[in-house]
Amino acid sequence: MSKQKPTILVVNDDGITAPGIKVLLEEMQSLGKIIVVAPDSPQSGMGHAITIGKPLRIEPVTIYPDVEMYKCSGTPVDCVKLAVNKIFKGRKPDLCVSGINHGLNNSINVLYSGTMSAAVEGAIESIPSIGFSYDDHTFDADFENCRPFVREIASQVLKNGIQFGTLLNVNFPQGTIKGVKVCRQADAKWAEEFDERMDPYNRPYYWLTGKFVLNDRGEDTDVWALNHGFASLVPTQFDMTAHHAIPQLNSWSFDVK
Amino acid sequence: MSKQKPTILVVNDDGITAPGIKVLLEEMQSLGKIIVVAPDSPQSGMGHAITIGKPLRIEPVTIYPDVEMYKCSGTPVDCVKLAVNKIFKGRKPDLCVSGINHGLNNSINVLYSGTMSAAVEGAIESIPSIGFSYDDHTFDADFENCRPFVREIASQVLKNGIQFGTLLNVNFPQGTIKGVKVCRQADAKWAEEFDERMDPYNRPYYWLTGKFVLNDRGEDTDVWALNHGFASLVPTQFDMTAHHAIPQLNSWSFDVK
Repeated sequence: MSKQKPTILVVNDDGITAPGIKVLLEEMQSLGKIIVVAPDSPQSGMGHAITIGKPLRIEPVTIYPDVEMYKCSGTPVDCVKLAVNKIFKGRKPDLCVSGINHGLNNSINVLYSGTMSAAVEGAIESIPSIGFSYDDHTFDADFENCRPFVREIASQVLKNGIQFGTLLNVNFPQGTIKGVKVCRQADAKWAEEFDERMDPYNRPYYWLTGKFVLNDRGEDTDVWALNHGFASLVPTQFDMTAHHAIPQLNSWSFDVK
Repeated sequence: MSKQKPTILVVNDDGITAPGIKVLLEEMQSLGKIIVVAPDSPQSGMGHAITIGKPLRIEPVTIYPDVEMYKCSGTPVDCVKLAVNKIFKGRKPDLCVSGINHGLNNSINVLYSGTMSAAVEGAIESIPSIGFSYDDHTFDADFENCRPFVREIASQVLKNGIQFGTLLNVNFPQGTIKGVKVCRQADAKWAEEFDERMDPYNRPYYWLTGKFVLNDRGEDTDVWALNHGFASLVPTQFDMTAHHAIPQLNSWSFDVK
Protein backbone atom coordinates (compact mmCIF):
# COMPACT_ATOMS: atom_id res chain seq x y z
CA MET A 1 0.00 0.00 0.00
CA SER A 2 1.37 3.39 -0.92
CA LYS A 3 1.91 6.01 1.74
CA GLN A 4 -0.86 8.57 2.08
CA LYS A 5 -0.19 11.92 0.41
CA PRO A 6 0.64 14.69 2.85
CA THR A 7 -1.99 17.37 3.43
CA ILE A 8 -0.89 20.97 3.00
CA LEU A 9 -2.57 24.17 4.20
CA VAL A 10 -1.86 27.13 1.90
CA VAL A 11 -2.46 30.63 3.23
CA ASN A 12 -1.26 34.18 2.52
CA ASP A 13 -1.83 37.82 3.42
CA ASP A 14 -2.18 39.42 -0.01
CA GLY A 15 -5.60 37.82 -0.45
CA ILE A 16 -6.89 34.70 -2.16
CA THR A 17 -6.68 36.15 -5.69
CA ALA A 18 -3.04 37.29 -5.45
CA PRO A 19 -0.66 35.81 -8.04
CA GLY A 20 1.80 34.77 -5.30
CA ILE A 21 -0.60 32.27 -3.74
CA LYS A 22 -1.28 30.77 -7.18
CA VAL A 23 2.42 29.99 -7.65
CA LEU A 24 2.60 28.56 -4.13
CA LEU A 25 -0.43 26.30 -4.53
CA GLU A 26 0.78 25.08 -7.93
CA GLU A 27 4.11 24.03 -6.43
CA MET A 28 2.43 22.40 -3.43
CA GLN A 29 0.12 20.37 -5.68
CA SER A 30 3.12 18.28 -6.71
CA LEU A 31 3.84 17.49 -3.05
CA GLY A 32 0.48 16.67 -1.54
CA LYS A 33 -3.22 17.27 -1.16
CA ILE A 34 -3.70 20.99 -0.71
CA ILE A 35 -6.40 23.11 0.90
CA VAL A 36 -6.25 26.88 0.54
CA VAL A 37 -7.72 29.15 3.23
CA ALA A 38 -6.89 32.78 2.53
CA PRO A 39 -8.20 36.27 3.26
CA ASP A 40 -10.91 37.65 0.97
CA SER A 41 -9.07 41.00 0.88
CA PRO A 42 -5.47 42.19 1.21
CA GLN A 43 -4.15 41.90 4.78
CA SER A 44 -0.58 43.16 4.46
CA GLY A 45 0.87 44.59 7.64
CA MET A 46 -1.69 42.85 9.84
CA GLY A 47 1.01 41.18 11.92
CA HIS A 48 -0.38 38.67 14.39
CA ALA A 49 -3.78 40.38 14.62
CA ILE A 50 -6.86 38.28 15.34
CA THR A 51 -10.50 39.25 15.02
CA ILE A 52 -12.28 39.43 18.37
CA GLY A 53 -14.71 42.33 18.16
CA LYS A 54 -16.71 40.97 15.23
CA PRO A 55 -17.58 37.57 13.81
CA LEU A 56 -15.82 35.81 10.95
CA ARG A 57 -17.04 34.39 7.65
CA ILE A 58 -15.50 31.50 5.78
CA GLU A 59 -16.87 30.25 2.44
CA PRO A 60 -15.78 27.82 -0.26
CA VAL A 61 -14.80 29.44 -3.56
CA THR A 62 -13.77 28.09 -6.96
CA ILE A 63 -10.90 30.02 -8.49
CA TYR A 64 -8.58 27.32 -9.89
CA PRO A 65 -10.04 24.03 -11.17
CA ASP A 66 -9.85 21.09 -8.75
CA VAL A 67 -8.40 23.14 -5.90
CA GLU A 68 -10.24 23.13 -2.57
CA MET A 69 -10.29 26.79 -1.54
CA TYR A 70 -11.95 28.91 1.12
CA LYS A 71 -12.02 32.66 1.47
CA CYS A 72 -12.10 34.13 4.95
CA SER A 73 -13.17 37.58 6.11
CA GLY A 74 -10.47 37.75 8.79
CA THR A 75 -6.73 38.19 9.19
CA PRO A 76 -4.08 35.68 8.06
CA VAL A 77 -3.89 34.32 11.62
CA ASP A 78 -7.69 33.95 11.69
CA CYS A 79 -7.39 31.93 8.45
CA VAL A 80 -5.04 29.44 10.08
CA LYS A 81 -7.20 29.16 13.20
CA LEU A 82 -10.36 28.60 11.13
CA ALA A 83 -8.58 26.17 8.80
CA VAL A 84 -7.34 24.01 11.67
CA ASN A 85 -10.61 24.14 13.55
CA LYS A 86 -13.31 24.13 10.86
CA ILE A 87 -11.72 22.74 7.67
CA PHE A 88 -9.07 20.22 8.74
CA LYS A 89 -10.87 19.55 12.04
CA GLY A 90 -9.11 16.83 14.04
CA ARG A 91 -6.59 15.80 11.33
CA LYS A 92 -3.96 18.55 11.30
CA PRO A 93 -2.22 19.34 8.02
CA ASP A 94 1.31 17.95 7.57
CA LEU A 95 2.55 21.32 6.37
CA CYS A 96 1.45 24.95 6.46
CA VAL A 97 2.87 27.27 3.79
CA SER A 98 2.19 30.99 3.62
CA GLY A 99 2.78 33.33 0.68
CA ILE A 100 4.38 33.78 -1.67
CA ASN A 101 4.27 37.31 -0.38
CA HIS A 102 4.55 40.18 -2.83
CA GLY A 103 7.41 41.92 -0.99
CA LEU A 104 10.20 40.88 1.40
CA ASN A 105 9.55 39.81 4.98
CA ASN A 106 13.16 39.65 6.08
CA SER A 107 14.64 41.21 9.21
CA ILE A 108 12.23 43.20 11.42
CA ASN A 109 9.44 42.79 8.84
CA VAL A 110 8.75 39.37 10.37
CA LEU A 111 6.83 41.25 13.09
CA TYR A 112 4.60 43.33 10.79
CA SER A 113 3.98 40.62 8.23
CA GLY A 114 0.65 38.84 7.95
CA THR A 115 2.36 36.20 5.80
CA MET A 116 4.84 35.34 8.53
CA SER A 117 2.27 35.61 11.32
CA ALA A 118 0.13 32.98 9.55
CA ALA A 119 3.17 30.69 9.48
CA VAL A 120 3.89 31.47 13.14
CA GLU A 121 0.30 30.51 13.98
CA GLY A 122 0.80 27.24 12.09
CA ALA A 123 3.87 26.56 14.22
CA ILE A 124 1.95 27.35 17.42
CA GLU A 125 -0.48 24.64 16.25
CA SER A 126 2.56 22.28 16.01
CA ILE A 127 2.29 22.19 12.21
CA PRO A 128 5.62 22.38 10.32
CA SER A 129 5.30 25.84 8.78
CA ILE A 130 7.08 28.02 6.23
CA GLY A 131 6.54 31.61 5.13
CA PHE A 132 7.74 32.52 1.60
CA SER A 133 8.28 36.07 0.37
CA TYR A 134 9.73 37.60 -2.77
CA ASP A 135 11.47 40.91 -3.33
CA ASP A 136 8.83 42.42 -5.61
CA HIS A 137 5.72 44.01 -4.14
CA THR A 138 3.97 44.58 -7.46
CA PHE A 139 0.92 42.61 -8.55
CA ASP A 140 2.82 41.52 -11.70
CA ALA A 141 5.79 40.10 -9.76
CA ASP A 142 7.46 37.25 -11.69
CA PHE A 143 7.87 34.34 -9.26
CA GLU A 144 9.41 31.90 -11.81
CA ASN A 145 12.88 31.76 -10.21
CA CYS A 146 11.37 31.06 -6.81
CA ARG A 147 9.45 27.95 -7.89
CA PRO A 148 12.14 25.25 -7.62
CA PHE A 149 13.31 26.60 -4.27
CA VAL A 150 9.79 26.70 -2.86
CA ARG A 151 9.30 23.08 -3.89
CA GLU A 152 12.69 21.96 -2.59
CA ILE A 153 12.42 23.68 0.81
CA ALA A 154 8.87 22.40 1.35
CA SER A 155 10.00 18.86 0.40
CA GLN A 156 12.84 19.02 2.91
CA VAL A 157 10.47 20.14 5.65
CA LEU A 158 8.03 17.33 4.81
CA LYS A 159 10.94 14.87 4.94
CA ASN A 160 12.89 16.17 7.95
CA GLY A 161 10.27 17.97 10.01
CA ILE A 162 11.07 21.14 11.90
CA GLN A 163 12.49 21.61 15.36
CA PHE A 164 9.85 22.05 18.10
CA GLY A 165 8.67 25.61 18.51
CA THR A 166 10.24 26.84 15.27
CA LEU A 167 9.24 27.63 11.68
CA LEU A 168 11.04 28.92 8.58
CA ASN A 169 11.09 32.43 7.16
CA VAL A 170 12.22 32.19 3.51
CA ASN A 171 12.84 35.25 1.33
CA PHE A 172 13.84 35.34 -2.34
CA PRO A 173 15.87 38.03 -4.12
CA GLN A 174 15.12 39.22 -7.64
CA GLY A 175 17.05 37.68 -10.52
CA THR A 176 18.94 34.40 -10.54
CA ILE A 177 18.97 32.75 -7.10
CA LYS A 178 22.46 31.48 -6.23
CA GLY A 179 21.28 29.10 -3.51
CA VAL A 180 19.87 29.06 0.02
CA LYS A 181 21.63 30.57 3.06
CA VAL A 182 20.55 29.74 6.61
CA CYS A 183 20.62 33.11 8.40
CA ARG A 184 19.66 35.08 11.43
CA GLN A 185 17.23 38.03 11.36
CA ALA A 186 19.19 41.22 10.66
CA ASP A 187 19.06 44.07 13.15
CA ALA A 188 17.19 46.76 11.25
CA LYS A 189 14.15 49.00 11.59
CA TRP A 190 11.88 51.29 9.63
CA ALA A 191 12.50 55.00 10.06
CA GLU A 192 9.07 56.46 9.62
CA GLU A 193 8.46 59.41 7.39
CA PHE A 194 4.73 60.09 7.68
CA ASP A 195 3.39 61.77 4.59
CA GLU A 196 1.14 64.58 5.89
CA ARG A 197 -1.74 65.80 3.71
CA MET A 198 -4.81 67.98 4.21
CA ASP A 199 -8.32 66.73 3.57
CA PRO A 200 -10.92 68.95 1.82
CA TYR A 201 -12.05 70.13 5.29
CA ASN A 202 -8.53 71.32 6.17
CA ARG A 203 -7.83 68.55 8.67
CA PRO A 204 -4.47 66.74 8.47
CA TYR A 205 -4.09 63.04 7.80
CA TYR A 206 -1.00 60.85 7.54
CA TRP A 207 0.20 58.06 5.27
CA LEU A 208 2.67 55.70 6.89
CA THR A 209 5.83 55.54 4.79
CA GLY A 210 9.39 54.84 5.78
CA LYS A 211 12.96 53.98 5.02
CA PHE A 212 14.54 50.65 5.90
CA VAL A 213 17.54 51.31 8.15
CA LEU A 214 20.08 48.49 8.50
CA ASN A 215 22.10 48.59 11.73
CA ASP A 216 23.77 45.25 11.15
CA ARG A 217 27.03 44.63 9.29
CA GLY A 218 26.94 40.86 9.91
CA GLU A 219 27.45 38.50 6.97
CA ASP A 220 25.21 35.88 8.57
CA THR A 221 21.99 37.88 8.23
CA ASP A 222 19.02 37.59 5.89
CA VAL A 223 19.68 41.08 4.54
CA TRP A 224 23.25 40.12 3.61
CA ALA A 225 22.13 36.91 1.89
CA LEU A 226 19.46 38.69 -0.17
CA ASN A 227 21.84 41.50 -1.12
CA HIS A 228 24.25 38.83 -2.42
CA GLY A 229 21.74 36.95 -4.56
CA PHE A 230 20.86 34.14 -2.13
CA ALA A 231 17.50 33.05 -0.78
CA SER A 232 17.52 33.63 2.99
CA LEU A 233 16.15 31.01 5.35
CA VAL A 234 15.75 32.12 8.97
CA PRO A 235 14.61 29.62 11.59
CA THR A 236 12.06 31.61 13.58
CA GLN A 237 10.51 31.05 17.00
CA PHE A 238 7.51 32.34 18.92
CA ASP A 239 9.16 32.19 22.32
CA MET A 240 9.94 35.89 22.59
CA THR A 241 11.72 35.55 25.97
CA ALA A 242 15.08 37.32 26.04
CA HIS A 243 16.60 34.46 28.03
CA HIS A 244 20.00 36.17 28.15
CA ALA A 245 18.49 39.13 30.02
CA ILE A 246 17.08 37.09 32.92
CA PRO A 247 20.22 37.03 35.13
CA GLN A 248 20.63 40.81 35.05
CA LEU A 249 16.97 41.41 35.91
CA ASN A 250 17.23 38.98 38.81
CA SER A 251 19.78 41.36 40.34
CA TRP A 252 17.18 44.16 40.54
CA SER A 253 15.27 44.53 43.77
CA PHE A 254 11.65 45.58 43.62
CA ASP A 255 11.05 47.23 46.99
CA VAL A 256 7.39 47.99 47.11
CA LYS A 257 6.09 49.61 50.29
CA MET B 1 20.81 72.83 38.33
CA SER B 2 18.35 69.97 38.80
CA LYS B 3 18.29 67.13 36.34
CA GLN B 4 15.63 67.35 33.65
CA LYS B 5 12.50 65.27 34.28
CA PRO B 6 12.32 62.17 32.10
CA THR B 7 9.76 62.16 29.29
CA ILE B 8 7.37 59.21 29.17
CA LEU B 9 5.19 58.00 26.32
CA VAL B 10 2.00 56.29 27.55
CA VAL B 11 0.08 54.06 25.14
CA ASN B 12 -2.38 51.16 25.32
CA ASP B 13 -4.64 48.98 23.20
CA ASP B 14 -7.95 49.24 25.06
CA GLY B 15 -8.39 52.81 23.85
CA ILE B 16 -7.69 56.23 25.28
CA THR B 17 -10.73 56.24 27.59
CA ALA B 18 -10.00 52.86 29.23
CA PRO B 19 -9.58 52.93 33.03
CA GLY B 20 -6.28 51.01 32.77
CA ILE B 21 -4.49 53.82 30.95
CA LYS B 22 -5.76 56.32 33.55
CA VAL B 23 -4.07 54.34 36.34
CA LEU B 24 -0.89 54.06 34.27
CA LEU B 25 -0.69 57.74 33.44
CA GLU B 26 -1.39 58.72 37.05
CA GLU B 27 1.52 56.59 38.24
CA MET B 28 3.81 57.90 35.50
CA GLN B 29 3.03 61.53 36.41
CA SER B 30 5.05 61.05 39.61
CA LEU B 31 8.07 59.94 37.55
CA GLY B 32 8.25 62.37 34.67
CA LYS B 33 6.62 64.47 32.01
CA ILE B 34 4.08 62.28 30.25
CA ILE B 35 2.52 62.37 26.82
CA VAL B 36 -0.32 59.97 26.02
CA VAL B 37 -0.88 58.73 22.45
CA ALA B 38 -3.54 56.04 22.37
CA PRO B 39 -6.08 54.52 19.99
CA ASP B 40 -9.45 56.24 19.66
CA SER B 41 -11.17 52.82 19.81
CA PRO B 42 -10.43 49.41 21.37
CA GLN B 43 -7.60 47.58 19.57
CA SER B 44 -7.32 44.36 21.56
CA GLY B 45 -5.88 41.44 19.62
CA MET B 46 -4.33 43.70 17.00
CA GLY B 47 -0.87 42.24 17.57
CA HIS B 48 1.84 44.07 15.64
CA ALA B 49 -0.54 45.30 12.93
CA ILE B 50 0.21 48.60 11.20
CA THR B 51 -2.07 50.65 8.97
CA ILE B 52 -0.88 50.78 5.37
CA GLY B 53 -4.00 50.70 3.22
CA LYS B 54 -5.55 53.87 4.59
CA PRO B 55 -4.33 57.09 6.16
CA LEU B 56 -4.10 57.84 9.88
CA ARG B 57 -5.53 60.61 12.03
CA ILE B 58 -4.01 61.94 15.21
CA GLU B 59 -5.64 64.73 17.26
CA PRO B 60 -5.11 66.33 20.66
CA VAL B 61 -7.84 65.60 23.21
CA THR B 62 -8.50 66.77 26.76
CA ILE B 63 -9.68 63.98 29.01
CA TYR B 64 -7.73 64.50 32.24
CA PRO B 65 -6.73 68.02 33.32
CA ASP B 66 -3.14 69.03 32.55
CA VAL B 67 -2.32 65.82 30.66
CA GLU B 68 -1.03 66.12 27.08
CA MET B 69 -3.04 63.50 25.18
CA TYR B 70 -3.58 62.51 21.57
CA LYS B 71 -6.06 60.05 20.15
CA CYS B 72 -5.06 58.12 17.06
CA SER B 73 -7.22 56.30 14.51
CA GLY B 74 -4.71 53.46 14.07
CA THR B 75 -3.36 50.44 15.88
CA PRO B 76 -1.25 50.51 19.05
CA VAL B 77 1.91 50.17 16.93
CA ASP B 78 0.76 53.08 14.73
CA CYS B 79 0.37 55.13 17.92
CA VAL B 80 4.01 54.57 18.87
CA LYS B 81 5.23 55.34 15.33
CA LEU B 82 3.18 58.54 15.17
CA ALA B 83 4.21 59.55 18.70
CA VAL B 84 7.91 59.16 17.96
CA ASN B 85 7.68 60.83 14.55
CA LYS B 86 5.06 63.55 14.97
CA ILE B 87 4.75 64.31 18.70
CA PHE B 88 8.18 63.70 20.25
CA LYS B 89 9.92 64.41 16.93
CA GLY B 90 13.72 64.29 17.33
CA ARG B 91 13.78 63.99 21.16
CA LYS B 92 12.85 60.39 21.91
CA PRO B 93 11.01 59.66 25.15
CA ASP B 94 13.08 58.19 27.99
CA LEU B 95 10.46 55.52 28.61
CA CYS B 96 7.52 53.95 26.79
CA VAL B 97 4.84 52.29 28.91
CA SER B 98 1.85 50.44 27.51
CA GLY B 99 -1.34 49.42 29.35
CA ILE B 100 -2.43 48.74 31.92
CA ASN B 101 -4.20 46.13 29.82
CA HIS B 102 -7.58 44.85 30.93
CA GLY B 103 -6.63 41.16 30.75
CA LEU B 104 -3.40 39.14 30.95
CA ASN B 105 -0.76 39.18 28.22
CA ASN B 106 1.39 36.41 29.59
CA SER B 107 2.71 33.40 27.67
CA ILE B 108 1.71 33.16 23.98
CA ASN B 109 -0.61 36.18 24.38
CA VAL B 110 2.44 38.40 23.86
CA LEU B 111 2.00 37.72 20.12
CA TYR B 112 -1.69 38.67 19.86
CA SER B 113 -1.54 41.61 22.23
CA GLY B 114 -1.73 45.18 20.99
CA THR B 115 -0.48 46.32 24.41
CA MET B 116 2.69 44.28 24.12
CA SER B 117 3.18 45.09 20.42
CA ALA B 118 3.18 48.80 21.27
CA ALA B 119 5.91 48.15 23.84
CA VAL B 120 7.82 46.03 21.29
CA GLU B 121 7.62 48.92 18.82
CA GLY B 122 8.99 51.24 21.52
CA ALA B 123 11.92 48.86 21.97
CA ILE B 124 12.52 48.73 18.22
CA GLU B 125 12.83 52.53 18.46
CA SER B 126 15.50 51.97 21.15
CA ILE B 127 13.22 53.39 23.85
CA PRO B 128 13.23 51.47 27.18
CA SER B 129 9.74 49.96 27.09
CA ILE B 130 7.38 48.09 29.39
CA GLY B 131 3.98 46.50 28.80
CA PHE B 132 1.70 46.16 31.87
CA SER B 133 -1.35 43.87 32.02
CA TYR B 134 -3.74 42.83 34.77
CA ASP B 135 -5.75 39.65 35.22
CA ASP B 136 -9.18 41.26 34.89
CA HIS B 137 -10.62 41.97 31.45
CA THR B 138 -13.67 43.86 32.72
CA PHE B 139 -14.09 47.61 32.30
CA ASP B 140 -14.46 47.92 36.11
CA ALA B 141 -11.17 46.14 36.86
CA ASP B 142 -9.66 47.37 40.15
CA PHE B 143 -5.99 48.19 39.47
CA GLU B 144 -5.19 49.45 43.03
CA ASN B 145 -2.82 46.61 43.95
CA CYS B 146 -0.88 47.09 40.72
CA ARG B 147 -0.07 50.76 41.33
CA PRO B 148 3.04 50.51 43.56
CA PHE B 149 4.53 47.79 41.34
CA VAL B 150 3.94 49.79 38.17
CA ARG B 151 5.70 52.76 39.73
CA GLU B 152 8.56 50.68 41.13
CA ILE B 153 9.26 48.75 37.92
CA ALA B 154 9.13 51.90 35.79
CA SER B 155 11.50 53.66 38.23
CA GLN B 156 13.96 50.78 38.02
CA VAL B 157 13.90 50.91 34.23
CA LEU B 158 14.45 54.68 34.25
CA LYS B 159 17.37 54.17 36.65
CA ASN B 160 18.99 51.03 35.18
CA GLY B 161 17.95 51.11 31.52
CA ILE B 162 17.14 47.93 29.64
CA GLN B 163 19.41 45.57 27.76
CA PHE B 164 19.72 46.32 24.02
CA GLY B 165 16.98 44.75 21.93
CA THR B 166 14.78 43.86 24.89
CA LEU B 167 11.70 45.16 26.73
CA LEU B 168 9.65 44.01 29.73
CA ASN B 169 6.34 42.16 29.76
CA VAL B 170 4.77 42.62 33.21
CA ASN B 171 1.55 40.89 34.28
CA PHE B 172 -0.30 41.25 37.57
CA PRO B 173 -2.49 38.64 39.30
CA GLN B 174 -5.71 39.47 41.11
CA GLY B 175 -5.59 39.95 44.88
CA THR B 176 -2.56 40.75 47.02
CA ILE B 177 0.65 40.72 44.97
CA LYS B 178 3.41 38.80 46.77
CA GLY B 179 6.27 40.32 44.77
CA VAL B 180 7.85 40.28 41.31
CA LYS B 181 9.26 37.15 39.66
CA VAL B 182 11.54 37.36 36.62
CA CYS B 183 10.26 34.62 34.30
CA ARG B 184 10.29 33.10 30.87
CA GLN B 185 7.26 32.96 28.57
CA ALA B 186 5.32 29.75 29.31
CA ASP B 187 4.73 27.26 26.50
CA ALA B 188 0.97 27.43 25.99
CA LYS B 189 -1.56 28.06 23.24
CA TRP B 190 -5.22 28.79 22.67
CA ALA B 191 -7.35 25.85 21.60
CA GLU B 192 -9.96 27.45 19.41
CA GLU B 193 -13.62 26.69 19.80
CA PHE B 194 -15.33 28.79 17.15
CA ASP B 195 -18.88 29.60 18.15
CA GLU B 196 -20.95 29.02 14.98
CA ARG B 197 -24.21 30.93 14.51
CA MET B 198 -26.62 31.54 11.67
CA ASP B 199 -27.47 35.02 10.42
CA PRO B 200 -31.08 35.96 9.49
CA TYR B 201 -30.27 34.94 5.88
CA ASN B 202 -29.24 31.44 6.95
CA ARG B 203 -25.53 31.94 6.36
CA PRO B 204 -23.09 30.80 9.07
CA TYR B 205 -20.73 33.10 10.92
CA TYR B 206 -18.15 32.40 13.61
CA TRP B 207 -17.08 34.03 16.86
CA LEU B 208 -13.48 33.30 17.85
CA THR B 209 -13.43 31.81 21.33
CA GLY B 210 -10.97 29.44 22.94
CA LYS B 211 -9.47 27.71 25.90
CA PHE B 212 -5.97 28.46 27.21
CA VAL B 213 -3.95 25.22 27.13
CA LEU B 214 -0.77 25.14 29.24
CA ASN B 215 1.85 22.67 28.01
CA ASP B 216 4.52 23.78 30.44
CA ARG B 217 5.09 22.45 33.97
CA GLY B 218 8.10 24.73 34.61
CA GLU B 219 8.21 26.78 37.80
CA ASP B 220 10.17 29.55 36.07
CA THR B 221 7.30 30.66 33.79
CA ASP B 222 4.99 33.65 33.86
CA VAL B 223 1.97 31.35 34.20
CA TRP B 224 3.46 29.74 37.30
CA ALA B 225 4.28 33.10 38.89
CA LEU B 226 0.78 34.48 38.30
CA ASN B 227 -0.87 31.29 39.58
CA HIS B 228 1.16 31.68 42.77
CA GLY B 229 0.27 35.32 43.45
CA PHE B 230 3.36 36.99 41.98
CA ALA B 231 3.64 39.63 39.30
CA SER B 232 5.49 38.11 36.32
CA LEU B 233 8.23 40.04 34.55
CA VAL B 234 9.43 38.50 31.27
CA PRO B 235 12.32 40.12 29.39
CA THR B 236 11.11 40.04 25.80
CA GLN B 237 12.95 40.46 22.50
CA PHE B 238 12.03 41.14 18.90
CA ASP B 239 14.80 39.05 17.39
CA MET B 240 12.63 36.06 16.54
CA THR B 241 15.55 34.01 15.17
CA ALA B 242 15.62 30.47 16.58
CA HIS B 243 19.43 30.62 16.87
CA HIS B 244 19.58 27.08 18.29
CA ALA B 245 18.00 25.70 15.10
CA ILE B 246 20.64 27.11 12.74
CA PRO B 247 23.22 24.26 12.97
CA GLN B 248 20.65 21.58 12.12
CA LEU B 249 19.35 23.51 9.12
CA ASN B 250 22.89 24.00 7.87
CA SER B 251 23.09 20.22 7.50
CA TRP B 252 20.22 20.22 4.99
CA SER B 253 21.15 20.35 1.32
CA PHE B 254 18.96 22.29 -1.05
CA ASP B 255 19.56 20.63 -4.40
CA VAL B 256 17.72 22.69 -6.92
CA LYS B 257 17.95 21.65 -10.54
